[in-house]
Amino acid sequence: MQRIVVPAGGIGGARFLRGLKSAAPDADITVIGNTGDDIHLFGLKVCPDLDTVMYTLGGGIHEEQGWGRADESFAVKEELAAYGVGPEWFGLGDRDFATHIVRTQMLAAGYPLSAVTEALCARWQPGVRLLPMSDDRIETHVMIDDPDGAPGARKAVHFQEYWVRLRASVPAHAIVPVGAEQAKPAPGVLEAIAAADVIVLPPSNPVVSVGTILGVPGIREAVTAADAPVVGLSPIVGDAPVRGMADKVLAAVGVESTAAAVARHYGPDLLDGWLVDSVDAAAVPDVEAAGIRCRAVPLMMTDLEATAAMARAALALAEEVRG
Amino acid sequence: MQRIVVPAGGIGGARFLRGLKSAAPDADITVIGNTGDDIHLFGLKVCPDLDTVMYTLGGGIHEEQGWGRADESFAVKEELAAYGVGPEWFGLGDRDFATHIVRTQMLAAGYPLSAVTEALCARWQPGVRLLPMSDDRIETHVMIDDPDGAPGARKAVHFQEYWVRLRASVPAHAIVPVGAEQAKPAPGVLEAIAAADVIVLPPSNPVVSVGTILGVPGIREAVTAADAPVVGLSPIVGDAPVRGMADKVLAAVGVESTAAAVARHYGPDLLDGWLVDSVDAAAVPDVEAAGIRCRAVPLMMTDLEATAAMARAALALAEEVRG
Repeated sequence: MQRIVVPAGGIGGARFLRGLKSAAPDADITVIGNTGDDIHLFGLKVCPDLDTVMYTLGGGIHEEQGWGRADESFAVKEELAAYGVGPEWFGLGDRDFATHIVRTQMLAAGYPLSAVTEALCARWQPGVRLLPMSDDRIETHVMIDDPDGAPGARKAVHFQEYWVRLRASVPAHAIVPVGAEQAKPAPGVLEAIAAADVIVLPPSNPVVSVGTILGVPGIREAVTAADAPVVGLSPIVGDAPVRGMADKVLAAVGVESTAAAVARHYGPDLLDGWLVDSVDAAAVPDVEAAGIRCRAVPLMMTDLEATAAMARAALALAEEVRG
Repeated sequence: MQRIVVPAGGIGGARFLRGLKSAAPDADITVIGNTGDDIHLFGLKVCPDLDTVMYTLGGGIHEEQGWGRADESFAVKEELAAYGVGPEWFGLGDRDFATHIVRTQMLAAGYPLSAVTEALCARWQPGVRLLPMSDDRIETHVMIDDPDGAPGARKAVHFQEYWVRLRASVPAHAIVPVGAEQAKPAPGVLEAIAAADVIVLPPSNPVVSVGTILGVPGIREAVTAADAPVVGLSPIVGDAPVRGMADKVLAAVGVESTAAAVARHYGPDLLDGWLVDSVDAAAVPDVEAAGIRCRAVPLMMTDLEATAAMARAALALAEEVRG
């Protein structure tokens, strides 16, 4: 059985994983989920990326929205607002609340996040092994201008505040994964990477999703050291993010919003292969010049079949670079 | 302005308070709420009696049910059940969950229950000052037979398990307010009692509601020492509880289910006056022989006007015993 490891963020990662499961139905897939955008809301621990993967692969996702639960209602949120308790800018539905209540209760009882995630997945049966990148708290903060401070003053806001409340509409000067330096990979993460036959970087955000996962001490090193070929799919198509606002956070780390620049950002020590979209075929020589095997194929996840074709192309490229 | 203090339980206490507000619209009413039936569910702090008073007087109560919120939905509870997380026997609706989430978050931030209750009431504007009997944790447990133990073995269960799950269908051998001995009255409780013009014991459960409140060290003593007359309304009409299962817990403390027995249970050191229902008029001499002024009036809270008449009768009796 082919063992595939995928470090994944939220919507893009989850949708790619659905294609990967379709392309490789017999594979043993381990997902290393980003927890850098986790946030405490209303005293509850919310893990947006883990939940998006779990709901998407488990059949509970709100399909059009890409996050949150299908058939959702918002009575709890309305009541919290009636109490004057916010934030109101983060959309938590009633069904979704239940997940966070169970998670928070288990964490308070002393279970690590990895055990909690396993327990939640026992219901959802996502068909992959979903591991948080770490059981330790890592919280991505974004440095932005502080309009209330002295001229030139900056302040750190939680990633969700930057991303959801501010919609990435202000310049991000730096991305700071608070707590990452002291964090350890969750149980099973390094073992899965070492035992992998293929490691696939999905078209998730290269900075705040895949980048945060790789930034947990030991994970990038393990991926680089793994025997398995490492192939990635560009989240940038035609110099713009396929979805989301990856360009904003790429700028914060000094990386151009091009398929080639993201490949060079990951680097040839990490990446063995890179898929760019057909419209970016001109970038292929550029990426290969950096020491990374590159192919141009359609990279728009318009439906399950298109996404499965992307996954097949990634697995084919992995076989090619394995040589 | 007349200062009235009412130690109150849940449904019966809340409905009486609505009548009292109608009967004495200009009075300054302080409610000392029972917290002995508080319970932690799903990691959240639930205060059924405080909430029933708050929702009833604030216009949010489910009228027919007498507890919980009007226009309620149950998405969160259904989802928790889908995760296999219970108990399922305690009915928490989505709107109600929001109250418990706000309360739990504030408690976790270090606010005492009295401050949390005040904050919740800022929304509901119940028209009374609602104080928990104590900021300390007191949890009423009930000793029942243990069918899984040796012959004659007993076990303690949380009051809500006895009351809601078991519906008081098994013998209660003892009522144990765990934590009461170490508890202190909440800020303002003793001051309100000392400053009261009238103290009214509503037709709440005399054991697990009013009894638990009076059992907080210092409260019964303060009520007994207060200058104000203390008058009560019998929760037993025609030898049966008006509602609920008060007879079950009265038996546990060796008290008959009669209006006169409950008066003697409270005792002439506490009670100056006692109202029994018209059908129990024959009990009046019995109660008066125990040194408690007694009158027979209709005591069925069939509607607001009937309840207001009960409150007026209680206030009139208070004036009479003040003499």
